[in-house]
Amino acid sequence: MTNTLYLPELREMLAESNAAELREFCTALHPARTAEFMEGLDAEETWAVLQHAEIPLRAEIFGFFEEEKQVAIVETIAREEIAPLIAEMAPDDRVDLLAEVAPNVVEQLMPLIPTVERRDILRLSSYPEGTAGAEMTTEIARLGEGLSAQEAIDEVRRKAEELETIYYLYVVDEEDHLRGLVSFRQLLTAKPNAKVDELMERDIVSVNATDDREDVADKVERYDLLAIPVVDDEYRLVGIITHDDIIDVVREEAAEDAYRIAAVAPLDTGYLETGLLLLTWKRGFWLAILFVEGLLTAFALERYQNITAAIPWLIIFIPLLIAAGGNTGNQSATLVITALTSGSIKLTDWWRVMWRELAMGFLLGAMMGTMGFLCALLKAPDAFSALAVFLTLFLLVPCGTLFGSILPMVFRRLGLDPALMSNPVVASMIDVVGIVIYMNVAIWMLL
Amino acid sequence: MTNTLYLPELREMLAESNAAELREFCTALHPARTAEFMEGLDAEETWAVLQHAEIPLRAEIFGFFEEEKQVAIVETIAREEIAPLIAEMAPDDRVDLLAEVAPNVVEQLMPLIPTVERRDILRLSSYPEGTAGAEMTTEIARLGEGLSAQEAIDEVRRKAEELETIYYLYVVDEEDHLRGLVSFRQLLTAKPNAKVDELMERDIVSVNATDDREDVADKVERYDLLAIPVVDDEYRLVGIITHDDIIDVVREEAAEDAYRIAAVAPLDTGYLETGLLLLTWKRGFWLAILFVEGLLTAFALERYQNITAAIPWLIIFIPLLIAAGGNTGNQSATLVITALTSGSIKLTDWWRVMWRELAMGFLLGAMMGTMGFLCALLKAPDAFSALAVFLTLFLLVPCGTLFGSILPMVFRRLGLDPALMSNPVVASMIDVVGIVIYMNVAIWMLL
Repeated sequence: MTNTLYLPELREMLAESNAAELREFCTALHPARTAEFMEGLDAEETWAVLQHAEIPLRAEIFGFFEEEKQVAIVETIAREEIAPLIAEMAPDDRVDLLAEVAPNVVEQLMPLIPTVERRDILRLSSYPEGTAGAEMTTEIARLGEGLSAQEAIDEVRRKAEELETIYYLYVVDEEDHLRGLVSFRQLLTAKPNAKVDELMERDIVSVNATDDREDVADKVERYDLLAIPVVDDEYRLVGIITHDDIIDVVREEAAEDAYRIAAVAPLDTGYLETGLLLLTWKRGFWLAILFVEGLLTAFALERYQNITAAIPWLIIFIPLLIAAGGNTGNQSATLVITALTSGSIKLTDWWRVMWRELAMGFLLGAMMGTMGFLCALLKAPDAFSALAVFLTLFLLVPCGTLFGSILPMVFRRLGLDPALMSNPVVASMIDVVGIVIYMNVAIWMLL
Repeated sequence: MTNTLYLPELREMLAESNAAELREFCTALHPARTAEFMEGLDAEETWAVLQHAEIPLRAEIFGFFEEEKQVAIVETIAREEIAPLIAEMAPDDRVDLLAEVAPNVVEQLMPLIPTVERRDILRLSSYPEGTAGAEMTTEIARLGEGLSAQEAIDEVRRKAEELETIYYLYVVDEEDHLRGLVSFRQLLTAKPNAKVDELMERDIVSVNATDDREDVADKVERYDLLAIPVVDDEYRLVGIITHDDIIDVVREEAAEDAYRIAAVAPLDTGYLETGLLLLTWKRGFWLAILFVEGLLTAFALERYQNITAAIPWLIIFIPLLIAAGGNTGNQSATLVITALTSGSIKLTDWWRVMWRELAMGFLLGAMMGTMGFLCALLKAPDAFSALAVFLTLFLLVPCGTLFGSILPMVFRRLGLDPALMSNPVVASMIDVVGIVIYMNVAIWMLL
């Protein structure tokens, strides 16, 4: 929802070059809200307004714009005006941004960015997407060993302005090896001359820069952390990942699972921002696989053509039966994938899961079988024939629950994402099973 | 994964009543990790080990046990031993716990809990589940108006031990009305005699105690907050919700959407903890609705029985065609539901979404139509007949993408959860549409 409430006033201030009011607009509100009010402005107008905020505030407001707007501004405004803003941004955010900006613009910008920040950008962008290294920021509150609590507080006080978080402080040795963690709260409540070495926690929860970001989110969640330190292979502190980035990771991973469950290759950008042909490809790829799988139903039905010819009323229940099998399979697959992802079941629980799914399968099969039997009474020549529909559902539904629950676990066991064993894949398999069961029940009972 | 590595040693220590080593075990590690090592112990053993930790640490370790284990301990151990632990727990956690404990146990416990904590429990449990009030904690760092930065720091230092977070401080007047917010970082970097009233942010992002927890998560995420204050209708500060609870909310809401998309009524507990009959009901309810919907396919097929009798090869493609329609509908529904939930599309974008889905529908329809045509060549008497399969897919797939994308938006417009317009519901509708298109194409081309 673009907030257009304030747009006419903003444009008027710009037209009048009303510096005092523009300055007031930039400073009065939370930067996120200031950014919201500017949503309707184009890149040049936005930049003109931002001129009235000091560079740190300007970078903060800028950080709350939507990514497309950020990219538009960076690509439109003169390079030498943008470079100081880039240098001021949080290290993790600016790397994400530059990855989206046109390469020739980045090339022109890089020489204008101070050496320290430029090196930082190059280092961070060397980590592959989806790893802890790619998510982390490098502005860390580091403390040397041997300080007292009061010295540590003074040190943090000096650096507080430029750090992303000051609430966890990491104690490192001369070679930057991570030695301990002390919270600011601990420093505050300790005696001023207590040594940081004695206060600090030595058993630290950390992640390696090459770890998957999903594992990072799991750890932060399990230990209720505000931030998690990132170390390299030699256990040197290279960055931290803070709580706000973790929320983004949890949200993005959940969306990724949802896409996979629906057989869409995950999107890197929003729905409307993804190109039409790219999105068609991300869907078409899976649809083609599912189509080939679906061909099996055609082959199966062809094999049984003499039965459908002999007992034509069987045909009208085919879509209903395979949908019932597919829907129960869907449910089981989603329940198991969600439970695996959230850690509420483990692979070692497989027999309990199987047992439960089988029991539920027979219960649900009996229920739907009864409904199917009652409907079939209307179309079948006699009650005995209608029983074929009951029996098919009673056998098919447990197959659906079993397939749906076991396949994602097999995928996890093989080290693949269980969400790849997505609902449509499960449903397509159940379709074939449904036809085979239905036709064989019919042969056995009715021929 | 139960961590059994340390169990034999722990049991040996208990048998020998080795107080020194048990004390060391309780204090050496991060409380979350201590809790993990104790997973295999039963309620009595666990309690015996916890005796060797001071009450605050005991409550902290206890807080990291799985909920079932917490409930088992509270229900097993003598009430007067448990009451001080309950009184020590974080206000939001203990309310969640007591909601799961047997009512008669809670009744016996309540008189043993100090008055202040007891009132707090009663107040918090009066908010309905899913609201901000039910998620919040009441241990807030409050500051009176008129303090200096140094006085505020000293005040926080005194209270630091008992507060859930000290990093945001809320300024209130004598009647507890929320007046401002100052971060600890601001206090640290300010001049010691600067007034808190001048430092504080007055434009505060807050939520009402009756707001939906999903809206809370959205705000925290949008403004990158560590914690959000909760106010009542008179704008009095009643609690805060911290970042770790927000991550849980995001995770739970994503799981809820996933369940709805697969047509399972959301679970309140983990997969294995939900009773078999309850879970069967949560699934069976939706399956029954879908079954009734699926009956429409049977009625449709019955209407066209003379065509399937006249051209029997048409039958073998029925499951393939409706699966193709259903799968594309699935994809569209999931894309739109995910985009709506994450806010990357709004209802006002409906025409852009419709246009994109229609364009993708015809592209994907042409692709799958071609694949279908090639397969049909093998079964149909001639190439012209096989074209019926192409034409059906070319028309059906855009219907799938349109239905799948529009229905969730209609539900959102009506104020309902778009995820209720779940994939199986969409797929069942497309099944009927698929049969009608297929049969009418056949009538038009082949009869």
